[in-house]
Amino acid sequence: MIERIAILGTGLLGTSVGLALRAAGFEGTITGWNRSPEQAQLALKAGAIDTVAADPLEAAREAQVTLLAMPIYATLDFMEKLSGVLGADHMVTDVGSTKGQIAEAAGRLFNTPERAAFLPGHPMAGKERGGAELAEASLFRGAVWLFTDDPEWQRSPHGAALVKGWREWVTAMGAKALDLDAARHDELVAWVSHLPQFVATALSAVLEEEVGDAPELKDVGGRGLREMTRLGASPYSMWRDIAYTNTEAIELAMQTLEQRLAHIRENLRTPGLRDEFDIANKFRRGQ
Amino acid sequence: MIERIAILGTGLLGTSVGLALRAAGFEGTITGWNRSPEQAQLALKAGAIDTVAADPLEAAREAQVTLLAMPIYATLDFMEKLSGVLGADHMVTDVGSTKGQIAEAAGRLFNTPERAAFLPGHPMAGKERGGAELAEASLFRGAVWLFTDDPEWQRSPHGAALVKGWREWVTAMGAKALDLDAARHDELVAWVSHLPQFVATALSAVLEEEVGDAPELKDVGGRGLREMTRLGASPYSMWRDIAYTNTEAIELAMQTLEQRLAHIRENLRTPGLRDEFDIANKFRRGQ
Repeated sequence: MIERIAILGTGLLGTSVGLALRAAGFEGTITGWNRSPEQAQLALKAGAIDTVAADPLEAAREAQVTLLAMPIYATLDFMEKLSGVLGADHMVTDVGSTKGQIAEAAGRLFNTPERAAFLPGHPMAGKERGGAELAEASLFRGAVWLFTDDPEWQRSPHGAALVKGWREWVTAMGAKALDLDAARHDELVAWVSHLPQFVATALSAVLEEEVGDAPELKDVGGRGLREMTRLGASPYSMWRDIAYTNTEAIELAMQTLEQRLAHIRENLRTPGLRDEFDIANKFRRGQ
Repeated sequence: MIERIAILGTGLLGTSVGLALRAAGFEGTITGWNRSPEQAQLALKAGAIDTVAADPLEAAREAQVTLLAMPIYATLDFMEKLSGVLGADHMVTDVGSTKGQIAEAAGRLFNTPERAAFLPGHPMAGKERGGAELAEASLFRGAVWLFTDDPEWQRSPHGAALVKGWREWVTAMGAKALDLDAARHDELVAWVSHLPQFVATALSAVLEEEVGDAPELKDVGGRGLREMTRLGASPYSMWRDIAYTNTEAIELAMQTLEQRLAHIRENLRTPGLRDEFDIANKFRRGQ
């Protein structure tokens, strides 16, 4: 039923979606566009898209489904533009890492019987570096693809059918769809995704300044150090919008961790340290 | 030249050393002992040791080289006992994760021409869980094996030869030997090994209490969360002695990280966040 898809933003996620759709048997057309044309050319060469669009809005009008695969503020910007040029025959979805503002815009700009449908999405997949050159057809296999749909939204029958169709392709790409309330989404990812990122950034920054020039360092660090700092390679450009659009939840999570570190530090020589290890062990057993 | 080795403590590291020695072609005898006999039997069944010793001190007397593969305070305890029963024909080494107190005891109790030689060692290898059942012959391949030798120590010619021989076996096991001053060792591992552990423990403990009962959690967490909390499974029993014997260096490292986290938290919406990501990126490029 979905035969024409436009991918706006052919970085790591957008290009991987194109590859994953092809691998899952999608035989329709996939048009791609990217702010920097080199990335679109890479996606084309990789076979993730069939054509490079000159105009993203035109590409969205010609497609049934448009995927916005770009940072959050760019997504919000395109939502404003697209709501004016798309109609009840269109559906738009995204991959943004925070959903509060995007879900709000989806309710305000889309999801009436006369307007295009918008399904806020967030695949829990990625790499510490972006770019079409790192894209993989298998990126979403086994990953959770979160949706923050709203049962109050009144979509056109056509829009509703496209939403259903897109959910089926997400499953076909190997991902596991999971629906969450947008506020709950942002709260949960602050703990399980954003907090680990900012901890890895802080740890990497501290190590760079304290021991970055130690000649022994490269040799001494083992698997634990590598794993605990891998996300330290994440670029600011990927995280700026997340920090801006989920600030309060991230602040709470970071402050909670700071207090926990202080508590452990004050208990390095007391039985309280055992309690902390026990609670941490319990978390890992539950994973 | 080394033909008789005693491994006191046949947990993960001790048993892995036995397996790695065999894999590297060691054809002499390996006697093993463990405080809990089941672990010694597992090491025997795995082929890491030839016989289980009833008396650890007797096993050390009959061996040329004794490896102490146990927690730090147990190592210090055995050093006291062994210095009274061993002589210039013996050499002892260890795998303790902090070296200040062990190197001090090595100078006080060993390393004179009349006494046994002691070479403080620390292989940078391990797992988040211990036990002979997890031992692997390849555990040390590519890992750094730190030594905190002291050029002032006056060993017997026999002791010096055994030290040289043990260093060769460490290389034969696939490890890369690296010599450090004991104080520098403890300072460096506080940053690159102990800090990552306590951060993983704190993060795991916080997540257990904040979202441990969230039904969506198991699905939502990706590779980043898994890596950032893997060390949360480390048992208190492995870390108690480290926290006790390197307290000040760990306190400094943790406090530095707490301040960094607070700084990042206060700059989630300022250009200061970019600087933090840039410094973190630099650390990872150097790795």
